[in-house]
Amino acid sequence: MGVSLKDVAQRAGVSVKTVSNVVNSYPHVKPETRERVQRAIDDLGYRPNLTARHLRKGRTGIIALAVPELGNPYFADLATAVIDAASQHDHIVLLDHTAGLREKEVLVSQGFRSHIIDGLILSPIRLETEDLLARAGGPPLVLLGEREYDAPYDHIAIDNVAAARTAVRHLIELGKRRIAFLGARHESLRQPAHLRLRGWREEIRASGGVPDESLVLATDGYDRRDGAAAMTRLLDRTDPPDAVFAYNDLVALGAMRVLTERGLRIPEDIAVVGFDDIEEGQYAAVSLTTMSPDKTAIARLAVDCLVERIASGASTAAFPRRILPGCTLTVRESTIGRGRPGTGA
Amino acid sequence: MGVSLKDVAQRAGVSVKTVSNVVNSYPHVKPETRERVQRAIDDLGYRPNLTARHLRKGRTGIIALAVPELGNPYFADLATAVIDAASQHDHIVLLDHTAGLREKEVLVSQGFRSHIIDGLILSPIRLETEDLLARAGGPPLVLLGEREYDAPYDHIAIDNVAAARTAVRHLIELGKRRIAFLGARHESLRQPAHLRLRGWREEIRASGGVPDESLVLATDGYDRRDGAAAMTRLLDRTDPPDAVFAYNDLVALGAMRVLTERGLRIPEDIAVVGFDDIEEGQYAAVSLTTMSPDKTAIARLAVDCLVERIASGASTAAFPRRILPGCTLTVRESTIGRGRPGTGA
Repeated sequence: MGVSLKDVAQRAGVSVKTVSNVVNSYPHVKPETRERVQRAIDDLGYRPNLTARHLRKGRTGIIALAVPELGNPYFADLATAVIDAASQHDHIVLLDHTAGLREKEVLVSQGFRSHIIDGLILSPIRLETEDLLARAGGPPLVLLGEREYDAPYDHIAIDNVAAARTAVRHLIELGKRRIAFLGARHESLRQPAHLRLRGWREEIRASGGVPDESLVLATDGYDRRDGAAAMTRLLDRTDPPDAVFAYNDLVALGAMRVLTERGLRIPEDIAVVGFDDIEEGQYAAVSLTTMSPDKTAIARLAVDCLVERIASGASTAAFPRRILPGCTLTVRESTIGRGRPGTGA
Repeated sequence: MGVSLKDVAQRAGVSVKTVSNVVNSYPHVKPETRERVQRAIDDLGYRPNLTARHLRKGRTGIIALAVPELGNPYFADLATAVIDAASQHDHIVLLDHTAGLREKEVLVSQGFRSHIIDGLILSPIRLETEDLLARAGGPPLVLLGEREYDAPYDHIAIDNVAAARTAVRHLIELGKRRIAFLGARHESLRQPAHLRLRGWREEIRASGGVPDESLVLATDGYDRRDGAAAMTRLLDRTDPPDAVFAYNDLVALGAMRVLTERGLRIPEDIAVVGFDDIEEGQYAAVSLTTMSPDKTAIARLAVDCLVERIASGASTAAFPRRILPGCTLTVRESTIGRGRPGTGA
């Protein structure tokens, strides 16, 4: 069998777990430790043998992860977390990019490349329930994301309505009354349910207000440019909002750029809340308050479910699970300003 | 053969090229057009048959792209550009994530998964020339990035020294004299040549100055947090810089967050130039001046070279090409302030 993880660990003077962390690209290893382990790996000529164990069971040890956008840091974070979680099960991950197109999502879900993958984690945008029901055989499948299906597959998704309500409640508690929603979907695109928009409506009603639909702005996509364009349209009206809840952080960051250009103060004039907790929001000149989905839990649960389904040998789940990982409010300067961390006032 | 692209085009009332753009996730298609094409696809039950043509030639039509970090938007942009370029050649792309670890880079370069891919585009960090020379067979390979090798493979990379000199010259022309370099590599990590640092030194000397090595800050990595930590160390000294040239945009953005926290004005107190031209820099509160590698050209050239090598049937290149796509200075507020776009003064 050649050189083992244990041999490397002994030579480097670290635990087997540490060697495994280095080999599997786990991020939180000190550079000095990583270097020491890498030197031992190089000296001994260690080669990780990822697939031998799987091949004995007629499997490849490869799972696919299909996401709509690589350019969205949320999906890059999620992909990194899935790669980490999969490595704990000795699986490697192939990434697919669907661009959120139904055609590509169908292609992926119907087992494209099924001869080389043991299972699939899919975050769909436009896939329909009928597409899933039409799926014949193919590898085990776990679904991620906001879209809801009545189909025999495990589904991991945060509670988008509850999370949106938390975000809006935070703004209401800060005294904001004209809260815009940036990033509604164009009706023409036949897109998923507007769960976050529904949460916006429900929370405004729960506070005794009436949702002002003129404050709901549709966008072509969910990028910075979409947020900037929507914010510009909103500010060009006579009666601007005093707060913005954006579909995601990219939309929020695009909106904040426009606020800064116009000389408006964040949060005094207009407070902003995003969604996703991408790192960019932490480092913005005014750091971004956001809803933080537990990406590590999402990734771990998705991989755990998938590995279990792979082990069961069945392509569909007789009792599909619907699992809701946590999503918490992370308060930063874009709602409470500087120098008052941790308070909501 | 079932439904063709042409059938879809006729039904949607658009050109075959437009249908192809939609199917291949080309980004610049109007939502209405995309919707119309998608409806025709759905109505006709069109399924793109990506692999039939390739299978007739004993190929899979799949190429792999291996990058060190998915979390770095530069690589996400590059991956998106490679996917677009590959689709022009009717190839699909599998993404690999190496975490910049030599072990994973060796695994990938030595033809891991070679039974399912026709060729590989690899952006290595720690791979050594000896690793490439030890490569026996395996699919055709094209290299990307800063690292230089003496090996029989095509290599696509911008001229990092020249690009760094352009960035530093811009700062010198603005009157800056104490220009720090953020993002040097720790010697202990045995990392690639410091081409951008070399450019910094050369340009300062060319302007009649003497490079002040105390202004060169090593970082653990190239993330926002690394830029923030380095900037903090630099500002805690008695004699701060008047400008910063960062290894990449993420390091620059982390540094800018610290400048903002300390109440320093960008660019009046400290000007900042990054590298990569990621979209985040455009939307920062102070938009980021940066060096913009021509990512579309890099991707197109890499795919063109690879497709040519695949067609030739040879695993190595008798006459490997070294191709240098362009990299231009994009001037924004972090060096010239607001309201003076396009000027260098």
